[in-house]
Amino acid sequence: MTAAHRAPPPPPISKRMQRDIDDPIPLKKGVLRFLEDPYHKTKNPNGIVNLGVAENTLMADELLDKLPKSLHMEYEDLGYGRPNGSVRLRTALANFINAHFNPATPIKADHIVATNGACAAINTFSYTLCNPGDAMLITAPYYGAFDPDVSHKSGARAITVNLNGRSPFEVDHIEALEQCMSKCQAEGIIVKGMILSNPHNPLARCYSREVLEALLKFASKHNIHVVSDEIYALSLFDHHLNDADAEEPQFTFDADNVDPSSLHSSSFISMLALPNLVELINPELVHIVYGMSKDFCINGLRVGFAISPFNSAVLEGIGGNAEFSWVSSITDSLCSTILEDTKWTNWFLLRNQKKLAASYLRTCKVLDHLNISYLPAQAGHFMWIDLKPYCDKIKDLLMERSGEAPKIPSQTLFNALIEHKVYIAFGEAFHTEEIGRFRLSYSMNKDAQELGLMRMEQVLKCITSGDIELSISPDEEDIYKLSKTLDDVCLVEATVGEMIPQNERPEKKKGPQCIVS
Amino acid sequence: MTAAHRAPPPPPISKRMQRDIDDPIPLKKGVLRFLEDPYHKTKNPNGIVNLGVAENTLMADELLDKLPKSLHMEYEDLGYGRPNGSVRLRTALANFINAHFNPATPIKADHIVATNGACAAINTFSYTLCNPGDAMLITAPYYGAFDPDVSHKSGARAITVNLNGRSPFEVDHIEALEQCMSKCQAEGIIVKGMILSNPHNPLARCYSREVLEALLKFASKHNIHVVSDEIYALSLFDHHLNDADAEEPQFTFDADNVDPSSLHSSSFISMLALPNLVELINPELVHIVYGMSKDFCINGLRVGFAISPFNSAVLEGIGGNAEFSWVSSITDSLCSTILEDTKWTNWFLLRNQKKLAASYLRTCKVLDHLNISYLPAQAGHFMWIDLKPYCDKIKDLLMERSGEAPKIPSQTLFNALIEHKVYIAFGEAFHTEEIGRFRLSYSMNKDAQELGLMRMEQVLKCITSGDIELSISPDEEDIYKLSKTLDDVCLVEATVGEMIPQNERPEKKKGPQCIVS
Repeated sequence: MTAAHRAPPPPPISKRMQRDIDDPIPLKKGVLRFLEDPYHKTKNPNGIVNLGVAENTLMADELLDKLPKSLHMEYEDLGYGRPNGSVRLRTALANFINAHFNPATPIKADHIVATNGACAAINTFSYTLCNPGDAMLITAPYYGAFDPDVSHKSGARAITVNLNGRSPFEVDHIEALEQCMSKCQAEGIIVKGMILSNPHNPLARCYSREVLEALLKFASKHNIHVVSDEIYALSLFDHHLNDADAEEPQFTFDADNVDPSSLHSSSFISMLALPNLVELINPELVHIVYGMSKDFCINGLRVGFAISPFNSAVLEGIGGNAEFSWVSSITDSLCSTILEDTKWTNWFLLRNQKKLAASYLRTCKVLDHLNISYLPAQAGHFMWIDLKPYCDKIKDLLMERSGEAPKIPSQTLFNALIEHKVYIAFGEAFHTEEIGRFRLSYSMNKDAQELGLMRMEQVLKCITSGDIELSISPDEEDIYKLSKTLDDVCLVEATVGEMIPQNERPEKKKGPQCIVS
Repeated sequence: MTAAHRAPPPPPISKRMQRDIDDPIPLKKGVLRFLEDPYHKTKNPNGIVNLGVAENTLMADELLDKLPKSLHMEYEDLGYGRPNGSVRLRTALANFINAHFNPATPIKADHIVATNGACAAINTFSYTLCNPGDAMLITAPYYGAFDPDVSHKSGARAITVNLNGRSPFEVDHIEALEQCMSKCQAEGIIVKGMILSNPHNPLARCYSREVLEALLKFASKHNIHVVSDEIYALSLFDHHLNDADAEEPQFTFDADNVDPSSLHSSSFISMLALPNLVELINPELVHIVYGMSKDFCINGLRVGFAISPFNSAVLEGIGGNAEFSWVSSITDSLCSTILEDTKWTNWFLLRNQKKLAASYLRTCKVLDHLNISYLPAQAGHFMWIDLKPYCDKIKDLLMERSGEAPKIPSQTLFNALIEHKVYIAFGEAFHTEEIGRFRLSYSMNKDAQELGLMRMEQVLKCITSGDIELSISPDEEDIYKLSKTLDDVCLVEATVGEMIPQNERPEKKKGPQCIVS
């Protein structure tokens, strides 16, 4: 026997890290299922087709042609440089924002901190704005990774604001925010801000000016910060839908002379673009997140931006620990080169928008054919679809077969889809209260998309006919729990709108009005 | 007047972020002074020459030739990939460690989490091993950035262990660790681990097997973790000193067939290389940090590695929040290509060692000529020099002139050097108790080095002759405070060995014995 066997066990790892590990977000759990056996056209044709991750591979050829040619390393790129991003990169991004976000006040390099991804940018805002235990409000549904982005390492809480059937794109949803705010005050939770994504993830639509103004007035009333995640700003395509061809995107534009205005649609209004910002709110409360992952179709690049144009204390804060979100100089240099090449950038972004429009229309056709309801998309890589009828059918089938109804039938549906080799993201991962919502991605090549949709169709048909094996997933409870209540004070995630135990919650009568068939 | 002018002020930023900002490490303060006016041979010949940062520019031409050719982007590099680093990168690094660190148990890809720099790796260990308020011990002097690396975001404390004149390379310094441990226990501070750098920063020497074993026994006795930062492992050059030419490095080796053993010196022993590890300590307590910045001479690359081969809980922990230390896929791919090219890597590392040896010897010559004492270096980019005689002279001069002695004469010397356009890092930034210690870098091209040393020589001569204007820096107190006590419990940095107010501390009689002239 060695000495080690007589040694006491090592001290356990820290409680907060154990908690972070023990609470993987449902979104991650879904992705991990897909990653067990990912589809590849030649290497793994029977693998799981990914129609769930927000990953845009439509522009892969264009990127693989451009990126390797764009790495021009300089002597300076070898040294430390600046942990908040090079002046070159931040200047290029400021110019990009000024060209495409229509800011009422021009953005400068000094307003920007570059981070290794947008999740690090949100984490930086959370750490800067919140003391441990303070909260950020987010209306449901929302991008599930906002939970760790807000809470991990910062000790802040992401509080889900359930809208009780209201649409976040209607002004009346502010009432739910007010109610949540009152609950927080009653429970002694200090709310420091709210986060929203615009264009919205997972709803794939943009906030109107009216709603943005109402949100800002709400934030102003309570003197809380607003962090607007605008990472899909240029993945906008609703202005191309009328002349888009679902089968083949149209590139009838002069690649060398793309008019930047052809990239813009009136549907997207950046929080920075409101000319009357100062009348709505103290601008010191307004901040933006952007990143290269989505509009430039490179999730692996890990380049995000925390932008705070009006608040020098927050600006200093978001740069205060920049050494932990430091972007590699290689990547910094490559990004700068791309952003500076405005001719290429405009061409790339327009081409991407046209491809997204075509791909989206292709998906709509299939969904219409299957009579599946969905929220019309304006931007992003995905759409929000309604598979509740299939969940209801699953409930009936399982009751019939075993006398036991699944608590989360969408989990059973999700598992059936994974079994049949297609992955779409389940709504619980986005904190929705609605049963049977899924986020369906369409930003992949046509072959994979057709195969994935075909597999989905087969599963849905088998459910309709009852010709499918189904079983209640053993971890359903877990997933539900994870996406809902947590009220350890030191923790990090808590759902104030969800105080009623799930079995006492009244069943919803109808879905949000914005769902159309 | 606009609405904003009537608005209440925005909530202040979080206390911990304000604290992080208010306590910049002295090392950073020094670097910021240099960055105000950095020397460039043609663009800014009158700028400040950098002989203070641990930045190795000796291999810049070789890198600028190799790196741009090495970016081969694949379709997979566009996607998310894995936040803990690609399997490819971690496999390449495992092979590298197995080839060069002589581990008693081979390292596998699964033992490694890639991070955006070694500072993020240390921060990950700190967050994983410590609850807020728990401590990591570090013997002084040490790399000043360990303070934020340990404490920021994690809420752990970096506790400086003063050795009271003992050398960290002698076994008897364990007594100081034991005393510090007792003090921590008496004050209810839970110590979770210790950090050491080997090769040592700033002392530029390696720990002997005897001392490593004593350190591990100490850690075992108290059941605390040991994190060994081995980022300078291959910047070892003491085995080349006998046949090195200070004026021109010798490259009399076959570039295509470099024997890996020519890269190794018996002076460096990795913590992983101890064959009797299990007899000394529970191996679950032993962890390693590595990174590409130093041995590969690219500080800007931001690629570090947290390595934990024996403890699955810690391994899971260091990967638990990897999305915030995610390495860009571009950089991940580039690093993988370089590490896989073992022929080039071996050539590059050997060439770097030879250049470091020559550059070090060149510096020794100048220091010998000036009769400046220094600790002989074995590895790294810098050496630890003793400018106390000049500090004493500064004290005398200022007493004579103004009747006021500076509390930290090395700050006055530092300021005089900066005024005369040369930057070297002052010892206080490394938490030393010894007066007049500086870390002098030599890993830059000969022209800059000669110019910097010449400027330093001029300043020192003027001090000797009294022919120089000197003034007590207004922020001396600040710098001293920063490098010493802090005992806010929520904070982060605390110096247990430094409980005696500075004006009551007995003056040291002599420097550490390891300083030779």
